[in-house]
Amino acid sequence: MARPKVPLLSADRIADAAIELVDSGDGFGVNALARRLGVTPSSLYNHVDGRDGIIELMRGRLGARYLAELPSGAWDDVVIRTMRGMRRLYAEHPNVVPLLVGKTITDDTVIASYDALATALVDGGFPEEEVLAVVAVLDSFALGFGLDLASPDEIWQPQGETQSLGRLVADAERGRPRSDHAFELGLELLIDSLRLRLARAEEASERR
Amino acid sequence: MARPKVPLLSADRIADAAIELVDSGDGFGVNALARRLGVTPSSLYNHVDGRDGIIELMRGRLGARYLAELPSGAWDDVVIRTMRGMRRLYAEHPNVVPLLVGKTITDDTVIASYDALATALVDGGFPEEEVLAVVAVLDSFALGFGLDLASPDEIWQPQGETQSLGRLVADAERGRPRSDHAFELGLELLIDSLRLRLARAEEASERR
Repeated sequence: MARPKVPLLSADRIADAAIELVDSGDGFGVNALARRLGVTPSSLYNHVDGRDGIIELMRGRLGARYLAELPSGAWDDVVIRTMRGMRRLYAEHPNVVPLLVGKTITDDTVIASYDALATALVDGGFPEEEVLAVVAVLDSFALGFGLDLASPDEIWQPQGETQSLGRLVADAERGRPRSDHAFELGLELLIDSLRLRLARAEEASERR
Repeated sequence: MARPKVPLLSADRIADAAIELVDSGDGFGVNALARRLGVTPSSLYNHVDGRDGIIELMRGRLGARYLAELPSGAWDDVVIRTMRGMRRLYAEHPNVVPLLVGKTITDDTVIASYDALATALVDGGFPEEEVLAVVAVLDSFALGFGLDLASPDEIWQPQGETQSLGRLVADAERGRPRSDHAFELGLELLIDSLRLRLARAEEASERR
């Protein structure tokens, strides 16, 4: 039997091509993806469960790259390490973000990452009914900072007089160091506030 | 003189069509926008400064819709009101987010909104060298929560056993109330932490 000239379709190959397509900014569609892979849309449908299935394959592929190492230990360590991984994922694939956010998460690797985060918060003593809200806060924060890292060096360029923005921008850091320092400040603010909240909840439960 | 059958091109009309195009998920391009407006790309170029110019028009149009009312007063009030406006903007136009984030901000309305936020933080007593980092934290938070609001009702659907995620999801709120409560929790965590930071900075400066 002759070997095929192009590699056979596989979930990983489809996911990689979809990520490249979306990263390129050309929008996402099954037909465009099939063209990129050099196959017909119908042969693509033999491998994936439509548009939603492809998005889930992309999530799984990115999860395996950025979130496969599950942190364990104290809740604040787990939070900090998970945030860093998520921020990198979102920062390096900003165009994929709206697709990922718009669909239910089923991929095992990504579920395991959220499970580790939620479990660390439960074990750390956060009230169970609040844990998913804390996860949403952390996730939104990582999402936002992923996109922040994709900002241009010059974020604001006022065209006229400002009260303080123009002056502050003139003196400020730029680029990667700016985004890194702001991310660290945000992480510190959130962790400080979560520690305070936990201490207050523990105090309240001792008083009961 | 006969009246033209289609309205003349204007900055607002171009911006509205571009926002609709990107909202539709079809990706963004000058040619696609010209088709949608029923004009040639070259007549579009008579009105706008290329792709970047169109993105800035979109920002201005969205800024006028969501951020035109400038909050004033105590820094924490200004933060809370600005966050709510930004979250709505990002939530209602998630596909526009990567475009907006990727380009330098020049639009007067949006600059004025960031200027009001930065000025409130300066007037509130935050150290000048930290103000833009705080703005980036708040902006990232609003960005992330705008996207969170675009999440499906069912965010996680574990396919197997989990340590805690499956149990927490089964009992949790869904949809808009879930995202609203998580946003309020995040805002509370950030404001609490910023108040604490401000109090510590004031204490330190009194001791000096």
